[in-house]
Amino acid sequence: MVKKPFSISFDLQTGNTDKKLVTSRYLSDMKEMYYDVSKAEEIIKNKNEKIYDFTELGFDEVEQDLLYGTSIVYPGKVGEEYYMTKGHFHTKLDLAEVYYCLSGKGYMLMETPEGEWDAVELEAGKAVYVPGRWAHRSINVSDEPLVTFFVFRADAGHDYGTIETKGYRKLIVERDGKPTIIDNPKWK
Amino acid sequence: MVKKPFSISFDLQTGNTDKKLVTSRYLSDMKEMYYDVSKAEEIIKNKNEKIYDFTELGFDEVEQDLLYGTSIVYPGKVGEEYYMTKGHFHTKLDLAEVYYCLSGKGYMLMETPEGEWDAVELEAGKAVYVPGRWAHRSINVSDEPLVTFFVFRADAGHDYGTIETKGYRKLIVERDGKPTIIDNPKWK
Repeated sequence: MVKKPFSISFDLQTGNTDKKLVTSRYLSDMKEMYYDVSKAEEIIKNKNEKIYDFTELGFDEVEQDLLYGTSIVYPGKVGEEYYMTKGHFHTKLDLAEVYYCLSGKGYMLMETPEGEWDAVELEAGKAVYVPGRWAHRSINVSDEPLVTFFVFRADAGHDYGTIETKGYRKLIVERDGKPTIIDNPKWK
Repeated sequence: MVKKPFSISFDLQTGNTDKKLVTSRYLSDMKEMYYDVSKAEEIIKNKNEKIYDFTELGFDEVEQDLLYGTSIVYPGKVGEEYYMTKGHFHTKLDLAEVYYCLSGKGYMLMETPEGEWDAVELEAGKAVYVPGRWAHRSINVSDEPLVTFFVFRADAGHDYGTIETKGYRKLIVERDGKPTIIDNPKWK
């Protein structure tokens, strides 16, 4: 069966689409991932804030196809730690991903299983290459949504569990009013 | 060897980058692809117009990696036929590509070896999925550059020869002031 071409519109500023393809992550979905869990729980008691949205196309996960869409990380902090995505390795660890930043400011925080890490700045117009083996998490350090357009191989898969269990080696927090990379005291 | 993350900036309106990664195609590189070759030759005598630019990252062509960049098709016509890219199949025919339109207006004209064809509109914010098996060519029908951000598997390869030899089944030309899809009388 030959697949048919199609298109989806994503607003170039907001990343929004009118297609029903968006998955939302709320603070309650990831409160343990923040350094200050008690602060996260306090926020949730008042309002379970939405942290980010992303597109899921729902294709079959075959190696010939690509998945694409937008990721929107909303502005905010849990204590001194900026809102961020869960972060994941690809299940097929060697597969890469491309993120093209449409608006906002932040970082793509990356690390390998061997302990290398890197933080690449995201701002409108920057296209970040995440090679295979690098877990990746986007972090919003501004007061506006951080919007990226992403593409990866449809069979890459998402391994969230490793990060959920071990955490990231580094965190990005606000210190003296600016983004600061620190060691994660909870990293296992 | 673990690859390192990196980023490249591409202007979100113009698609331009300051990295020296851009390949340009001039009318002389593709005059035989236009319906009216004598008109193309006439234009070249006056000025060998630049038709489009695109980014080449120059990675090793391995299946784990992705290639990305911008394509910029300039406005203009050869007779009644709009400026366009050469168009190509992937050498690994089954591999897909994603194009996210940043600015301008045009079409992604596609066809399969079996003779199916499709023309999907490109305008700012539209992300077109080109599945495997579909040759693809972008065509600028406006007075502004047509700018897209593209991503494909690094091992996909470009088969330009099939289109150079056989041509496309369909053309997009200006008739009565608007884009019109016609059969290509030169198609073999």
